[in-house]
Amino acid sequence: MLNAKLFTEVEAAILKEIIQLRRDVRGQRFTDKPLNKEIIDQLLTAALHAPSVGFSQPWEFVLITDPALRQRVKESFDRANEAALEVFSQRHQEYARLKLEGILEAPLNMAVFYKAPEKPVLGQTTMDETGLYSVVCAVQNLWLMARALNVGVGWVSILDPEKVGRILNAPAGRRLVAYLCIGYTDGFYSQPELEILEWEKRKDREAAVIYEQYNNI
Amino acid sequence: MLNAKLFTEVEAAILKEIIQLRRDVRGQRFTDKPLNKEIIDQLLTAALHAPSVGFSQPWEFVLITDPALRQRVKESFDRANEAALEVFSQRHQEYARLKLEGILEAPLNMAVFYKAPEKPVLGQTTMDETGLYSVVCAVQNLWLMARALNVGVGWVSILDPEKVGRILNAPAGRRLVAYLCIGYTDGFYSQPELEILEWEKRKDREAAVIYEQYNNI
Repeated sequence: MLNAKLFTEVEAAILKEIIQLRRDVRGQRFTDKPLNKEIIDQLLTAALHAPSVGFSQPWEFVLITDPALRQRVKESFDRANEAALEVFSQRHQEYARLKLEGILEAPLNMAVFYKAPEKPVLGQTTMDETGLYSVVCAVQNLWLMARALNVGVGWVSILDPEKVGRILNAPAGRRLVAYLCIGYTDGFYSQPELEILEWEKRKDREAAVIYEQYNNI
Repeated sequence: MLNAKLFTEVEAAILKEIIQLRRDVRGQRFTDKPLNKEIIDQLLTAALHAPSVGFSQPWEFVLITDPALRQRVKESFDRANEAALEVFSQRHQEYARLKLEGILEAPLNMAVFYKAPEKPVLGQTTMDETGLYSVVCAVQNLWLMARALNVGVGWVSILDPEKVGRILNAPAGRRLVAYLCIGYTDGFYSQPELEILEWEKRKDREAAVIYEQYNNI
């Protein structure tokens, strides 16, 4: 019943490196090299072994290659991105230069949905959002496995999630959690792209770590 | 600017194994062995290298060892768990036997909060929940790194998140995403505990994967 496997320091260091070299990959970096079925299976296996509240496994993965469907998603992105450009009006030119998705360039798109449960789920009755969080854990597992397989993933959130649901005929009770663009790349940036472009800085570690209680100085 | 690192098949297989052997660890499995600072630093480093929407890094990690604070959190769990027991009345005895947290047994608790941004965040203007999702990605990174370091993590969601915020003096604009119990264990189960106990079954892969569109048969 108990598994005695102990990982070594070398194995932990490999995970650390995968975590640190994972990047959000956008359209200018994807190549045409197709993803074979075995690679896609490995990505899905990683996702399906994520933790989920009450072992509810509330995820659905829609694999999209059809150009017409992707074109419709791209149109949703374009509209949402125009609206976003207004929000960042003080950095208008800087924002307009950013490439923020790879919907048409990546060989595979993946829409990841949450399927609301039909009966109460252990652990979810007090914090309902843990169902959605389980799906996010699956996405992060997939993202790390992709990096380990030298495959790029970009998460597109500048979208109308309900519109994307309609494009994909999502039945009632589904909620779009993530829209991913997946494919090989010509290289991963050495730092997050928004850090390289000086859109945002990496925060000091001290700002994010609190001991015992807030205001406990 | 581009990093040429390509991971090998062996390295990808190590990640696969870490993902598959990660478990949610509860109180009956934690040991007294203390977590040293270096281990905690490695967990935080993994979390801080998670993806975040617009590189906003909207996370705060509260490290809790104080027994009095943990006792108060445990009382919040106990109340929420009594309420949950009513929800699962048809499986009352089975539910009552489950050990669902390790708040007092684990040497370290960690409350992970989302800090709402003070200005608009790139990528978050259309899907506000991606801020919370960024924090979940950090938790999943930490959880995998813990397993690679042979450290157990349990995510407790049977809590009143606002109550936990008050116990920890969380300022305005914070939202509890995850409450983690962290420590060494006497072993990791070979399968998810709720699967072993036959509370829930692993779903068929086919049920979770859709091609192109829903109802596209």
